[in-house]
Amino acid sequence: MAGNSFGTIFKLTTFGESHGAAIGGIIDGCPAGLSLNFEAINLEMQRRKPGQSAIVTQRKEADEVKFLSGIFEGKTTGTPIGFTIENTDQKSKDYSHIKDIYRPSHADFTYDKKYGVRDYRGGGRSSARETACRVVAGAIAKQLLSEIKINAFVSSVGEIFIDKPYQDLDFSKTENNVVRCPDETSAAKMESLIREMRKNGDTVGGTITCVLQNIPVGLGEPVFDKLHAELGKAMLSINAVKGFEYGSGFCGAKMKGSDHNDIFNPDGTTKSNLSGGIQGGISNGMDIYFRVAFKPVATIMQKQDTIDSAGNKAIAEGKGRHDPCVVPRAVPIVEAMAALVIADFYLLNKISRH
Amino acid sequence: MAGNSFGTIFKLTTFGESHGAAIGGIIDGCPAGLSLNFEAINLEMQRRKPGQSAIVTQRKEADEVKFLSGIFEGKTTGTPIGFTIENTDQKSKDYSHIKDIYRPSHADFTYDKKYGVRDYRGGGRSSARETACRVVAGAIAKQLLSEIKINAFVSSVGEIFIDKPYQDLDFSKTENNVVRCPDETSAAKMESLIREMRKNGDTVGGTITCVLQNIPVGLGEPVFDKLHAELGKAMLSINAVKGFEYGSGFCGAKMKGSDHNDIFNPDGTTKSNLSGGIQGGISNGMDIYFRVAFKPVATIMQKQDTIDSAGNKAIAEGKGRHDPCVVPRAVPIVEAMAALVIADFYLLNKISRH
Amino acid sequence: MAGNSFGTIFKLTTFGESHGAAIGGIIDGCPAGLSLNFEAINLEMQRRKPGQSAIVTQRKEADEVKFLSGIFEGKTTGTPIGFTIENTDQKSKDYSHIKDIYRPSHADFTYDKKYGVRDYRGGGRSSARETACRVVAGAIAKQLLSEIKINAFVSSVGEIFIDKPYQDLDFSKTENNVVRCPDETSAAKMESLIREMRKNGDTVGGTITCVLQNIPVGLGEPVFDKLHAELGKAMLSINAVKGFEYGSGFCGAKMKGSDHNDIFNPDGTTKSNLSGGIQGGISNGMDIYFRVAFKPVATIMQKQDTIDSAGNKAIAEGKGRHDPCVVPRAVPIVEAMAALVIADFYLLNKISRH
Amino acid sequence: MAGNSFGTIFKLTTFGESHGAAIGGIIDGCPAGLSLNFEAINLEMQRRKPGQSAIVTQRKEADEVKFLSGIFEGKTTGTPIGFTIENTDQKSKDYSHIKDIYRPSHADFTYDKKYGVRDYRGGGRSSARETACRVVAGAIAKQLLSEIKINAFVSSVGEIFIDKPYQDLDFSKTENNVVRCPDETSAAKMESLIREMRKNGDTVGGTITCVLQNIPVGLGEPVFDKLHAELGKAMLSINAVKGFEYGSGFCGAKMKGSDHNDIFNPDGTTKSNLSGGIQGGISNGMDIYFRVAFKPVATIMQKQDTIDSAGNKAIAEGKGRHDPCVVPRAVPIVEAMAALVIADFYLLNKISRH
Repeated sequence: MAGNSFGTIFKLTTFGESHGAAIGGIIDGCPAGLSLNFEAINLEMQRRKPGQSAIVTQRKEADEVKFLSGIFEGKTTGTPIGFTIENTDQKSKDYSHIKDIYRPSHADFTYDKKYGVRDYRGGGRSSARETACRVVAGAIAKQLLSEIKINAFVSSVGEIFIDKPYQDLDFSKTENNVVRCPDETSAAKMESLIREMRKNGDTVGGTITCVLQNIPVGLGEPVFDKLHAELGKAMLSINAVKGFEYGSGFCGAKMKGSDHNDIFNPDGTTKSNLSGGIQGGISNGMDIYFRVAFKPVATIMQKQDTIDSAGNKAIAEGKGRHDPCVVPRAVPIVEAMAALVIADFYLLNKISRH
Repeated sequence: MAGNSFGTIFKLTTFGESHGAAIGGIIDGCPAGLSLNFEAINLEMQRRKPGQSAIVTQRKEADEVKFLSGIFEGKTTGTPIGFTIENTDQKSKDYSHIKDIYRPSHADFTYDKKYGVRDYRGGGRSSARETACRVVAGAIAKQLLSEIKINAFVSSVGEIFIDKPYQDLDFSKTENNVVRCPDETSAAKMESLIREMRKNGDTVGGTITCVLQNIPVGLGEPVFDKLHAELGKAMLSINAVKGFEYGSGFCGAKMKGSDHNDIFNPDGTTKSNLSGGIQGGISNGMDIYFRVAFKPVATIMQKQDTIDSAGNKAIAEGKGRHDPCVVPRAVPIVEAMAALVIADFYLLNKISRH
Repeated sequence: MAGNSFGTIFKLTTFGESHGAAIGGIIDGCPAGLSLNFEAINLEMQRRKPGQSAIVTQRKEADEVKFLSGIFEGKTTGTPIGFTIENTDQKSKDYSHIKDIYRPSHADFTYDKKYGVRDYRGGGRSSARETACRVVAGAIAKQLLSEIKINAFVSSVGEIFIDKPYQDLDFSKTENNVVRCPDETSAAKMESLIREMRKNGDTVGGTITCVLQNIPVGLGEPVFDKLHAELGKAMLSINAVKGFEYGSGFCGAKMKGSDHNDIFNPDGTTKSNLSGGIQGGISNGMDIYFRVAFKPVATIMQKQDTIDSAGNKAIAEGKGRHDPCVVPRAVPIVEAMAALVIADFYLLNKISRH
Repeated sequence: MAGNSFGTIFKLTTFGESHGAAIGGIIDGCPAGLSLNFEAINLEMQRRKPGQSAIVTQRKEADEVKFLSGIFEGKTTGTPIGFTIENTDQKSKDYSHIKDIYRPSHADFTYDKKYGVRDYRGGGRSSARETACRVVAGAIAKQLLSEIKINAFVSSVGEIFIDKPYQDLDFSKTENNVVRCPDETSAAKMESLIREMRKNGDTVGGTITCVLQNIPVGLGEPVFDKLHAELGKAMLSINAVKGFEYGSGFCGAKMKGSDHNDIFNPDGTTKSNLSGGIQGGISNGMDIYFRVAFKPVATIMQKQDTIDSAGNKAIAEGKGRHDPCVVPRAVPIVEAMAALVIADFYLLNKISRH
């Protein structure tokens, strides 16, 4: 597949650039008969969109989804669900100054070299704008998996980390602050750091932790489509992601087997959960938890030396509206991608046994 | 797809369990006319196989590949390449004692729950035995990409880390020691630790770093099949992998944009390379480097409390032949998976432009 | 895939029902840098749409395509091309009388049984309305394959057949009459028959012949994706199609090998062409010609006994606007599907050889 | 996909040429827990193989399947089923005389042009030898669909046709004669014609009719993967097939809607069945019946003028062992492909509804 579809059964195909007329997608494979809660879908869209607070980008989008098919009298029909989201506030004029310039650590250079043509307005297809479509599909996937709890939150910004295990956090507090960090002390420090970055025209990275609970046993399709491998691909496909780890992650690499193994309880649950809820690439019913690393956004408000498409020296200076830290806005995207992966494996698992 | 195929164009489908008659695979989509060097393929197989040294598992396999089709007079014909590898030394009797037991942190429990039937001999399909097939396909992919240099090595075992950047390492030294670490000082310490684990019947984890050089610009298919997302999925699908990061990775999450951005040189290369050779999900020509985290193998030679399939208490004790540390053996597997990913994107990129 | 995508590289995914807000699709994998001729695309749309003449359905649709992405300054960017087409004249009230009725030989019964929910307005997703999206994508595929000539025409309606081989026909005359038959004598008879059907509130079937010329050698991916097998699947996926044959077709089944074999000329062309331009599932450079059989449309303006969803007796009577013969309107759809198949194989063939 | 896989969930990938060491395949997606009857699988293999009677090719193959994985204690494990079949009687020396010759209406020319390299021994990958692998997979699919009845038979050879509707035939008689025609009168005439062809060193074509009964309602994935479209692709992918029609087929194209529509009975069955058991691309529970047209095999025992790869004149004369009529041997292949298609849709249909 040429990269614009995600999923095997529950499949999302998207289109759209940051400065085109609209973005949108088609969700195929959603089982028929699912009653959709459109307010819940809108809520997810609102969580993602820019202009929500003073710490994120000031671009204003209505971000209203128009469903064009696949839904009749409020229920999915089993036919593909097509949807569009208008780009209403793209301000093309903000980007004319970068027409031939390759901004450092952006996709300008690579898209130009790969395709030989580049929509220079904003990030074009490489912009995070397309993630709005993922959130729509993820919202529907979440409703298919009504029993499953998906909670993502910001676990670090720059060098500020939550210092508690996730089990000590109250997920209901995640939406209470603009950083989406359920630990209030850390949240305050993070917000402070982000405002400082904004003032300096700089950006900073961070990490998101996601916890999936009440997952049925048996999800995952070894050997290549292991559950954690698909989750990893899903998260790594989000803009600015540099790393993924689940369960004990990179720390587990330092450990000994005698310390790392999760011992079974009689009922099949485990006493510890360094496995992160996945063994042999298949869910075992325990919490699935993973962490996603985001680099600092490449668009900074400081001048940078760079080149243009002819190789001449140029200056890159960010204008327009940008995020000092994308991590809070990526929280609903991480949840959406997790929902898409789980939905696909949930359906595939129904046909595993004769 | 139900998990046993990898790739879109250059596609590998595998079969086989650790204790079945044979394992094997089919490579589809390899362009016709490629002259194959069978010695080179065998060399990769030898690198991976057990019984090579005193620090790894003592299971002896000839690991001889039999090519059954798709090759005529030494060249690929464009038709699918089928191959088998016999399992000659599986010692089924070593596993009869675990027939109904769920070994901690193994795939016994999840496979049983998902499929309702479980080949209890060894790890069955969940065993790392199937990775031998990946190495065969990866060896052929490497020959397709003759200009590209793929070098993986062990960068840490337990808490012992190489303390140099990869640019200061001599990759030709990787095969000089059983740990596959090109830094001799670290290699000696790692070997020591592994022997200690072997003596204690314990296991330890580690990490592998992989560097891809001389990569053409333009490989990767955004937005979902970004190059680093596919590399991540490829690595995460290898047994025991818990994490993947590329470029600045999790460290980049702590950085500021002004420090993180890679400034362009006039010729299109970059002064720094925190991007890890990939921008917007597409290769930019700079070195691609990534790190893969392996947990300690779950099969330890110490007694562990566990349960059987009826929920009764049981004891799991490893017998048979096991690895105190799989990381050295995984080096050729990491290279093979990298080669498969690059081969697929290399072919896809040929049809990106009109 | 769950049925709403067509193609491997040049891939079309569609959505939309006859009476939803809009229909549309996403074209993925179209190489970057192709200059699009939008008038040509519109022309194809006009050829397909209803309300063009007195012999076809009177439903009026502007059938205006809105391209939303993937095109910049008139050229394809290599990113997915999203498009929508509004349904402006669906007259939902025409279908309220069939809410629970299963119309004979329609998809009402099967969709209801499969999905448990049915959009009863018109044919919903089963309506031929979605073929408009195929024509959009086919029009773009045609422009990618600018050297290739694709000509379809009506070769029979009811028992009226063209009695000349296609080589004696002038394809430029196909659009000169409403039946899209390039043989004027046959066209007149066909038109007469269709008007009679319209008067009686009945429908009649027919066949379309399609000729592809100037096809490069080498298109097709044996053994399962043979060129004629994909063409067959493409045509059979069009509404009302009951049969497909290529080259000598069903007549060839009566022949002897000594009469059927195509002897080679020194330059690689063949003296005869019963092969229909395809040997071993791969194009050999000669004309590819095939015939597609269309059953009479099931919606007739006569009363028919039927049942409702509870199994009670009911009467089905067509109201609304219907076609006495869909075959003329299907000509651009057949061409569009042929273009999609050829485009996909054209791109795949570029990576067949090392 | 590059043509060597068939199916989405129940997926077969094959490899192997007529004169390579072996042929084989991997069946992925077969649900776990299915008890396999190996004798039944062997029986299907025996039905297909050459050397069974005086009217078919004299090549002798043991055609013994070796299952290498995916089956444990007689049941499928849900892991991929790998299998090989040795080529034991290929007589490579029979083909050395055609090393550079393009035999008329064979795949020699097209494979050489597409791949630039050609395994000239026999038909290589284009030979019907690979269909043995389809029969293995189809035999397993049949066992998954134990309630469904799949019966194919020869309905015509040359100009000799069965003149009864299939409902008047006794399928149990199909295996009673070498032609696999359940109508004894027609069978005798067909056998006579084939013997005559053999004597003359000529070949003749024919058709196979296949009837699927006891099919559940709801199989098929519109709009592109309609049940009849997938069946058509499946049949057209078999060697020598030139046409496919289902239900009323090409005859339906001559009919009027008032005569063609199938009226419902109160219980959902239909009084007539010109629909061929499929409406809107989805099965409606009635018999699915279709007809497949086979051209006469291109390998005849008469001299033919042809060219070699340099364009020089040459003579093609069939040596080795050939079939005067492949149609009887194709009967189990048609059944196998039907089983594969139905199995795939059967599994997909399980996840259509919430």
